[in-house]
Amino acid sequence: MTYCVALKLDSGMLFASDSRTNAGVDHIATFSKLKVYEQKDERVLAILSSGNLAVTQGVMNILDRHRNAEPGTNTIWNVGSLYDVATLVGDALRDVQKRDGPYLAQNNIDYNATLLLGGQIKGEEPRLFNIYAAGNFIEASVDTIYFQVGESKYGKPILDRVLTSATPYQEAAKCALISFDSTIRSNISVGMPIDLLWYPRDSLRVGVQKRIGEGDPYYTMIRNSWGSGLRRVFTELPNPDWLS
Amino acid sequence: MTYCVALKLDSGMLFASDSRTNAGVDHIATFSKLKVYEQKDERVLAILSSGNLAVTQGVMNILDRHRNAEPGTNTIWNVGSLYDVATLVGDALRDVQKRDGPYLAQNNIDYNATLLLGGQIKGEEPRLFNIYAAGNFIEASVDTIYFQVGESKYGKPILDRVLTSATPYQEAAKCALISFDSTIRSNISVGMPIDLLWYPRDSLRVGVQKRIGEGDPYYTMIRNSWGSGLRRVFTELPNPDWLS
Repeated sequence: MTYCVALKLDSGMLFASDSRTNAGVDHIATFSKLKVYEQKDERVLAILSSGNLAVTQGVMNILDRHRNAEPGTNTIWNVGSLYDVATLVGDALRDVQKRDGPYLAQNNIDYNATLLLGGQIKGEEPRLFNIYAAGNFIEASVDTIYFQVGESKYGKPILDRVLTSATPYQEAAKCALISFDSTIRSNISVGMPIDLLWYPRDSLRVGVQKRIGEGDPYYTMIRNSWGSGLRRVFTELPNPDWLS
Repeated sequence: MTYCVALKLDSGMLFASDSRTNAGVDHIATFSKLKVYEQKDERVLAILSSGNLAVTQGVMNILDRHRNAEPGTNTIWNVGSLYDVATLVGDALRDVQKRDGPYLAQNNIDYNATLLLGGQIKGEEPRLFNIYAAGNFIEASVDTIYFQVGESKYGKPILDRVLTSATPYQEAAKCALISFDSTIRSNISVGMPIDLLWYPRDSLRVGVQKRIGEGDPYYTMIRNSWGSGLRRVFTELPNPDWLS
């Protein structure tokens, strides 16, 4: 399994993913699920992926080849809108599934994959898309400022309780890491390290890209302090008087 | 969808369920998912149910008829062990699925159902079982003191962070209600009122049975204070210094 979250804030976009993959419980490995394409001062694209790793790696390979595409071809480097990039990513997903899907289906292997695509192209606002397994997609809006993919439920309550588009990005990063901590605690298929990307609005450059591993001091502090803070709040709340 | 949780504490057992059912978004109704069978000083059985409502109601009807079973028949009222009750409940589930399953399958309707069975029979310890859709079941142990069914992920982190078998039952009830609050906030298919049952160990009688509806003062306090407490802990934690 996987856990990825992408936030669209007034001040920019934050992306985070775990990096555990597993094919059965005896084949657990670490793969980055965050891919960044940057052309400084022109466009920054970030993709978070969940689902069948062979499928999502296939998608990334198709997108990587856009660097050397024949002139006149639409690529993630030359289309004028993030909407068009989402279309190209959806097409790549469909291509891989068309190629591998029937063989995987024969072996009853799930070949679904879901991707989050965000970033900014010069001349546009920052945009964030959730690309479904079928290659279609939806876009984040003022009412829905984040998307999650993968094992999303454990870490959703804290996002719902804290985040707005006006949340400062440092706080949003803190919130995202708490969301990861809740997920990693409750689901063994989601694991460290966490890959994190901060894209400051209108910068058209990667802001901060950071890998947070086991023993990272900030993450360790979050993990310990959040847990003890929760237990403190829990203890402070009165017990029900109808049960005593 | 549904959310139910059952806890096996040193001091007794706590059961809680929401009561929202839906068949599509335009048919939402309230049904209790908590059923209690009590023979004072001899046995208390509590069943929480999730899944297809027609199936779980069918199971309850079969169990209700055990009151008037022919002498010599094994029933939930006369078997000597909660393990045997779990077998009878699993059999009832299989009977209903055998009767209705093929017709529901023809209409692509999911006829799965999962049940939690807990309680105590005189001469035994309190026991808690998770009965799967196939009618087989597992029992809670010292290492696994609670079971959830239905929309369980949103409300799992708080249980994992707080509960042990030594947790006083008033605190456990508080924890369960916080778990419901997180679930109800994040998933519209889980809704009030919450049915709650407290069974004190070795009492062989229902302790407290209570329905907690919208506007219940204690639940409202939990909802508000837990949310504001979380935000306070969140605010107190420092932001990452590598992102400023």
